[in-house]
Amino acid sequence: MRIALAQINYHIGNFENNEKKVIDAIHKAKEQKADLIVFAELAICGYPPRDFLEFEDFINKCNAAIERIAKECTGIAAIIGSPSENPEVKGKDLYNTAFFLSEGKVISKHFKTLLPNYDIFDEYRYFEPNNIFKTVDYKGQRLAITICEDLWNIGDDLLYRGNPMDELFKQNPDIIINIAASPFAYDQAEKRKEILSQNVKKYKLPLIYVNHVGAQTELLFDGGCMIINSNGLIADELDYFKEDFMVYDLERIEEITSPVIKEKPSKIALIHDALVMGIKNYFQKLGFKKAILGLSGGIDSAVTIVLAAEALGSENIRAVMLPSRFSTGHSLKDAVGLTKNLNIPYDVIAIEEAFKSFESALKPYFKDLPFNIAEENIQARVRGVILMALSNKFGYILLNTSNKSEAAVGYGTLYGDMNGGLSVLGDVYKTEVFDLARYINREKEIIPKNTITKPPSAELRPDQKDSDSLPNYDILDKILYQYIELRRGPNELTEMGFDEAVVRKTLKLVNTSEYKRHQTPPILRVSPKAFGMGRRMPIVAKYLA
Amino acid sequence: MRIALAQINYHIGNFENNEKKVIDAIHKAKEQKADLIVFAELAICGYPPRDFLEFEDFINKCNAAIERIAKECTGIAAIIGSPSENPEVKGKDLYNTAFFLSEGKVISKHFKTLLPNYDIFDEYRYFEPNNIFKTVDYKGQRLAITICEDLWNIGDDLLYRGNPMDELFKQNPDIIINIAASPFAYDQAEKRKEILSQNVKKYKLPLIYVNHVGAQTELLFDGGCMIINSNGLIADELDYFKEDFMVYDLERIEEITSPVIKEKPSKIALIHDALVMGIKNYFQKLGFKKAILGLSGGIDSAVTIVLAAEALGSENIRAVMLPSRFSTGHSLKDAVGLTKNLNIPYDVIAIEEAFKSFESALKPYFKDLPFNIAEENIQARVRGVILMALSNKFGYILLNTSNKSEAAVGYGTLYGDMNGGLSVLGDVYKTEVFDLARYINREKEIIPKNTITKPPSAELRPDQKDSDSLPNYDILDKILYQYIELRRGPNELTEMGFDEAVVRKTLKLVNTSEYKRHQTPPILRVSPKAFGMGRRMPIVAKYLA
Repeated sequence: MRIALAQINYHIGNFENNEKKVIDAIHKAKEQKADLIVFAELAICGYPPRDFLEFEDFINKCNAAIERIAKECTGIAAIIGSPSENPEVKGKDLYNTAFFLSEGKVISKHFKTLLPNYDIFDEYRYFEPNNIFKTVDYKGQRLAITICEDLWNIGDDLLYRGNPMDELFKQNPDIIINIAASPFAYDQAEKRKEILSQNVKKYKLPLIYVNHVGAQTELLFDGGCMIINSNGLIADELDYFKEDFMVYDLERIEEITSPVIKEKPSKIALIHDALVMGIKNYFQKLGFKKAILGLSGGIDSAVTIVLAAEALGSENIRAVMLPSRFSTGHSLKDAVGLTKNLNIPYDVIAIEEAFKSFESALKPYFKDLPFNIAEENIQARVRGVILMALSNKFGYILLNTSNKSEAAVGYGTLYGDMNGGLSVLGDVYKTEVFDLARYINREKEIIPKNTITKPPSAELRPDQKDSDSLPNYDILDKILYQYIELRRGPNELTEMGFDEAVVRKTLKLVNTSEYKRHQTPPILRVSPKAFGMGRRMPIVAKYLA
Repeated sequence: MRIALAQINYHIGNFENNEKKVIDAIHKAKEQKADLIVFAELAICGYPPRDFLEFEDFINKCNAAIERIAKECTGIAAIIGSPSENPEVKGKDLYNTAFFLSEGKVISKHFKTLLPNYDIFDEYRYFEPNNIFKTVDYKGQRLAITICEDLWNIGDDLLYRGNPMDELFKQNPDIIINIAASPFAYDQAEKRKEILSQNVKKYKLPLIYVNHVGAQTELLFDGGCMIINSNGLIADELDYFKEDFMVYDLERIEEITSPVIKEKPSKIALIHDALVMGIKNYFQKLGFKKAILGLSGGIDSAVTIVLAAEALGSENIRAVMLPSRFSTGHSLKDAVGLTKNLNIPYDVIAIEEAFKSFESALKPYFKDLPFNIAEENIQARVRGVILMALSNKFGYILLNTSNKSEAAVGYGTLYGDMNGGLSVLGDVYKTEVFDLARYINREKEIIPKNTITKPPSAELRPDQKDSDSLPNYDILDKILYQYIELRRGPNELTEMGFDEAVVRKTLKLVNTSEYKRHQTPPILRVSPKAFGMGRRMPIVAKYLA
């Protein structure tokens, strides 16, 4: 049997686009004499469709697309994900469904059993869990069709009581098909291969895995579709971060006896490529071309502009330097140097006059009160007003340059430097931003060396350094990682050797900054625990605060 | 048997506060010779604790509080909600649990079976559904202990396959206890009474219902604890929107044969009281006292300041008028009139100079391009900078005054009038804001009549009216209600008689404004479908857009 794997970048709710891509792939698979083509989970509507699933009109559009796609399936079968109605009165209205299409029609529907409902996943919000298990016979092969999480209840830490693949296995299938919507995190590809390999080892069956590729706002899908033979050897893995298409002869795949060696990208290379794709797709799918951002001379905006230039082309980036009375000489120089290296024109718009006009308007109320956070924030907000004015006038999307360490402890000004349509680095800790800068400079100096070596500063008051207000980033990022990614509490952290006062201060900063993160732009997710839809915290709570 | 109902305003994660309130109520119940006291669902940690539940440290604190509270339960029993660990390897780590405390210790644990996972609820994110059903015998009575949703799978539209009360009923209980965390919406109290009455009718058992009261950021709990006898008569209902405590003699409640008539508050009165509580608790629980807001002379800021003054006291409100070159004479006059009626001092800070300084800074780039949305937004953002500067300098929380109609169609400036720590009216349609204004003026004119009768305008360009950009609010709000609250699609709406072009334009505005709502302050939820945690939409999607 010849099987095609279609690794496609879908667009949520864009049925016309998604249907066209699916039908084109079916035609291509037919040309290449494939017997079966496999698409991703909820491919028709894109993933995650979220509360659009509650609209009958949306489900009707999914059904209509499936009907039209089925008609294309003559001389070939297709497996494709779409929601489908639960015909029973009891339970949620929908099933997360893999449609098996052949002979120009829907042959069978296979429902998802294990519904992920953690981190960024909300599937039990919409779907009823399946409790009917059936394989499908096609061209002498018996297929066990599963959907993403259905294969993940394996190993030591079992999140669910049942295991759908155990049920399907009783029907003696010849191959496992898994259609997925498994978003990227820097450690996800390895986890995924491990889990799928465990399944192959357990059931001694070959496995076809088809995932999404492309960005859907904060969620990035890396693709990584693969075929594993029953010896547990990954026979091939499709490219990350781009659309791809391959046809395999199952019998020949089964004969492979030594693993295909592919170079494993480093964590930072993965993050880099993921962010570039994330920016690119955000703009494409919204129908925008051009980005604007403020360049401070610091490392966050430097890394952001490099990624944006890769994603959108230097010609589509507008850089603005917004010096204040507290900006140091090297800031403008470093920022200018960077734009020259990137061949991006820049404008310098001083914020002094606007800042003064606010000082003067507020003088009757502030009187002689000392300069403090209020004045610091005014400067950041004046920058925000100018960048947004250019954005509104010329149709740029403003890129936010805050990093994850800042977002965590609330070191940023709401309605100021926290502005933007998209946060590029909001899931990248400061120490990782430095790693990204060094990665960007791996062949030649693009980001000026001084930007990387000087101590980080917001430059909102004389001689300000980040380290005046925050623990050293080396320590801070370690504590944040333990608290945010691993959910370790204060006692565990001090037992690990972190200073108790620093731990207490850091966790308090994190927990009392929820109100700021609530108003933050969407953050491109590259870690297993990003701020945004995957981390949901109360605002008025009083815990470690 | 004498049963005490404790209607308490908990604070998420504030264990010290919650434990003290619980123990005080136990002492009071003992004094009043109660045999049993009933508290709400997840009372120990507050509701919703959200991802704090993923921290072992947080669960340990819940467990420790339960241990201490159990020790107080001598000569009395208590039923109280708290998370508890799932001892098995399989399944989620926690159960949503009702603890039965007596004789100074934990006698039994009763787990929640039906886990709401829709709208604002995420319970399957954290909890394993129960599948063991056991009543508890106490002082000659057999208690069927259920948790909130456990009683809601009744009637025609069944969201779950099973029904835990059917299982418990097989053990011949004498009374149903339901501990709940059921947030307010203007139609919720009636729904709740209807559902609970259906249970009483079905099982012919008396029912004790204990809910939370108080606000937790966007979620408002109205209380409404009640006791229903086996004839289906609501014997008593505790007050809405405040803490309350009552002890009932079950035998005497059973003897009641005619219903207690309580005046049913109007929808607008409920919304009014809910919003006042929401503002009050938001400030209290964050440890703030004072609010600031911009008064435009329009109806949204007028209603907001009245509600804020009721919640926080006039003496804690700072009103700022921020006229621009486009402000009309009546705007300032109406705003001043309102502050006088409320006895709130006001400041007038003109935005012209700051606006000019931005015009001048941007002149080299804007050149002679026509005045458009960019300049309109600069004005709104200048106001935002001034209000936030005062907020930062003096420790006010800025109140956001956007209404639900504006939030729906994106009629507002990000980082401008969309600023604020809390959105008071973000779940109140414009036509309902008018209703609130008339309700506020029901005894005397607090909001100047002209504010209510003049056509709504943002006053960001000459002679601007909301109706230049938007359909008439009477039509708009009806379409929005059908689309947002009832999830009706474009075809259904046109079939209902709405103009097709208006429907298409409105739904497109709603769906392309998700990026703005993503950065909006938390919105006090008063309707069954509010923007915020209960409505989750993709941003880069292309559906009806």
